[in-house]
Amino acid sequence: MTNNSIVPNEINLLKSLCEVSSPSGSEYLMKEFLLKYLEENQHNFKTKPVIINNQHTQDGMLWIFGDKPTTAIFAHQDIIGFTVRYDNKLVPIGTPSAELGYELVSVSDKPVHTKLVTMDDDYLSIDLNYSLAPGTELIFAPHFQVDGDWVTSPYLDNRMGIYNALRVAETLENGIIAFTCYEEHRGGNVASLARIIFEQYGVSQALISDITWHTEGVFAGNGPAISLRDSYIPRKLFLNKVIQLAAESGIPYQLEVEGSGGSDGSELQRSPYPFDWCFIGVPIKEAHSPKETLHIDDLEKLVALYSYLMKKL
Amino acid sequence: MTNNSIVPNEINLLKSLCEVSSPSGSEYLMKEFLLKYLEENQHNFKTKPVIINNQHTQDGMLWIFGDKPTTAIFAHQDIIGFTVRYDNKLVPIGTPSAELGYELVSVSDKPVHTKLVTMDDDYLSIDLNYSLAPGTELIFAPHFQVDGDWVTSPYLDNRMGIYNALRVAETLENGIIAFTCYEEHRGGNVASLARIIFEQYGVSQALISDITWHTEGVFAGNGPAISLRDSYIPRKLFLNKVIQLAAESGIPYQLEVEGSGGSDGSELQRSPYPFDWCFIGVPIKEAHSPKETLHIDDLEKLVALYSYLMKKL
Amino acid sequence: MTNNSIVPNEINLLKSLCEVSSPSGSEYLMKEFLLKYLEENQHNFKTKPVIINNQHTQDGMLWIFGDKPTTAIFAHQDIIGFTVRYDNKLVPIGTPSAELGYELVSVSDKPVHTKLVTMDDDYLSIDLNYSLAPGTELIFAPHFQVDGDWVTSPYLDNRMGIYNALRVAETLENGIIAFTCYEEHRGGNVASLARIIFEQYGVSQALISDITWHTEGVFAGNGPAISLRDSYIPRKLFLNKVIQLAAESGIPYQLEVEGSGGSDGSELQRSPYPFDWCFIGVPIKEAHSPKETLHIDDLEKLVALYSYLMKKL
Repeated sequence: MTNNSIVPNEINLLKSLCEVSSPSGSEYLMKEFLLKYLEENQHNFKTKPVIINNQHTQDGMLWIFGDKPTTAIFAHQDIIGFTVRYDNKLVPIGTPSAELGYELVSVSDKPVHTKLVTMDDDYLSIDLNYSLAPGTELIFAPHFQVDGDWVTSPYLDNRMGIYNALRVAETLENGIIAFTCYEEHRGGNVASLARIIFEQYGVSQALISDITWHTEGVFAGNGPAISLRDSYIPRKLFLNKVIQLAAESGIPYQLEVEGSGGSDGSELQRSPYPFDWCFIGVPIKEAHSPKETLHIDDLEKLVALYSYLMKKL
Repeated sequence: MTNNSIVPNEINLLKSLCEVSSPSGSEYLMKEFLLKYLEENQHNFKTKPVIINNQHTQDGMLWIFGDKPTTAIFAHQDIIGFTVRYDNKLVPIGTPSAELGYELVSVSDKPVHTKLVTMDDDYLSIDLNYSLAPGTELIFAPHFQVDGDWVTSPYLDNRMGIYNALRVAETLENGIIAFTCYEEHRGGNVASLARIIFEQYGVSQALISDITWHTEGVFAGNGPAISLRDSYIPRKLFLNKVIQLAAESGIPYQLEVEGSGGSDGSELQRSPYPFDWCFIGVPIKEAHSPKETLHIDDLEKLVALYSYLMKKL
Repeated sequence: MTNNSIVPNEINLLKSLCEVSSPSGSEYLMKEFLLKYLEENQHNFKTKPVIINNQHTQDGMLWIFGDKPTTAIFAHQDIIGFTVRYDNKLVPIGTPSAELGYELVSVSDKPVHTKLVTMDDDYLSIDLNYSLAPGTELIFAPHFQVDGDWVTSPYLDNRMGIYNALRVAETLENGIIAFTCYEEHRGGNVASLARIIFEQYGVSQALISDITWHTEGVFAGNGPAISLRDSYIPRKLFLNKVIQLAAESGIPYQLEVEGSGGSDGSELQRSPYPFDWCFIGVPIKEAHSPKETLHIDDLEKLVALYSYLMKKL
């Protein structure tokens, strides 16, 4: 059963993104992918972006479209996983769901395949008869599946958010895309990028392109979720502006209210630069497990909504 | 029974402040009040301040007095409350005390009055037979009472701190008043204001005008409390300077030592600007409940102490 | 029994450092020591540093060596301890280990000697028949012992890190040493120093000179530990560069992986400046107790490793 709302090419892009191994600290691996993608695809872009990629952005990167940007999209490049400590015991990168038997693969030239095994002395471990080098990074093994309108894969968080940014990039005339680091693990890159965006481009509006949770109030398949708050509360006046534009766009969306959770928006909020931010993302089932699931229609609507907002904000 | 140490006018100012609805995220509502107050009252000010109120301050605002400011007063504009999630379930804004039956009112053009009801599935809820829109903000219903020398009202935290700033403003010749946002809910505005204060005015001394707790060591009615530490520890050399001046002033004060709690001072401490800060405020009974209570004499002494310090620091 | 790898002079320097009383908030006391040390010893330095010590650094300080610095060493000046609240009850400065009978001394012109006594109403207290002034700082009483190759003393954390910086300073030609504040107590000084280092010197590489823990994977006596992560994860590309240089140096070292803990590196990570950082320190037994213990060989290897890295990075 095929889906008509997304062309195979685009599903392949999402699949390719999900197969990139870039746990927090190793985002340079996603940046390499993105630079190659840009090189191969920017002839199809309406506007060719200027790339800011240097010691000031570290493993993050900025794509600047046009000379009158007003708003920046933030999409984080890192994924959750595990670091090997001593004797194959693990400490988490971010907050991965951890169930017995989850398939893992190492981030290395010759990837090692193994499985998550039960806790020993409060540590998670792996099913392997020799010890991996301390510091080895492990991530969920790729397993991308399409079933009708549903996509299931590890790391839709946040390959979905990057996918959205890349699709919006195709038609973006003025705007900034910030590819960020460390969102899954305590942050640390967003404030540096925010400094450049604010000081050099005078931009202080942000949309956070990331996944959110399928809950009792927000449902996969019902459209992108505009978050009214999570553990942080955005500025009401900016939220009102975004929601009014979303309503004008005619694109379906859902309003989300959470008391916990955070995003690159949390870091913008804490930074010494006066950013207004709003989180808009696709609801995902089983977030932070290897079986993250989204509805393809939400994805298409998200791209449309971002494209509209980036013009109007 | 009347109180002689404070004129009715001034109690009315405190009452008016307590009636402004500005939970974290909606501080623009307090800013509107303050701008109107300034317009109506600055003819009585010794010095007319320059107002910094733009996208760089977001919903915060700076009042700059004179051309030789050395110290900034920080007073936060936000109050605690609740956000409606789905089906009238609530998530907190800041850390409100939550007791069965507390009267709440929505922050909206047509305020809805309701009451806090018991927890359902770990959520607080409200006593209402229809669902409020997700994202609706609820705050404690106003209930301002004067009983002899004592004032009881929701939101003395931090209308008291703003009251102090406005009274100090009347005679301030050189100094800055920073009206801030998000103090009750994880912060996010102080660092941006600190950047402007430090980079544009060269000021890096701060007094934090906020309420503190009536405890076994600091008592409502015994004078303003100078905090030697809370969860953060200010720089000893600056504390010593403030305390020496306070002693010279002849105004009674108390010294406070806490191991927890925080204020706008915490955010100055974490910011990348080298601020020295000291918290000086009035002790309040039943903080974060609708029955916050202070002693009027403390308030008058606080205004006197701040006025003295802003001259001498 | 004497130790041949370290001259008595140098052990005396470490001992002198351990006897300076500078709990978080009172780092100016260590700064005074360091300025005096510099005055007396810089004639032996290969390069005479420029000192940045003003309101912008607060109680921190920068030593700038040469006109082509590429990397900064961060060593924190503060130590853990206790603040007296009311009635001799204590709140911690940082996270001191607290056992019945630990000897304490006040940070004051006439030091008061006392002992830690058991908890009363959840507070630690002291064995004294009169009340110390609220705000009085207490620290572990000095007790420096050398036993063969082992040194035991309170406050090897972080007098060891400062010792390392001072020894590296002797031969440093280009580089920065940042003496920081508040590392033990929630931070607050590093971001201000990082701003100066980044904006005025264009330096964004950092080595964190601090103690780490003797654990099941890192052992006192086996050489300096290079941390691959703690609660924060440094940028992999920078770690790889440091480790490659360490391997080239021929100096023995250990690789550490932790899931918790932090350092001045955490604050660099959170700052809005794009710092690459790596923690390299000596493993200590019984950290945060009055009996912190290190192996002298680790110390000498640490100085050698830092000297090598500061040249090559």
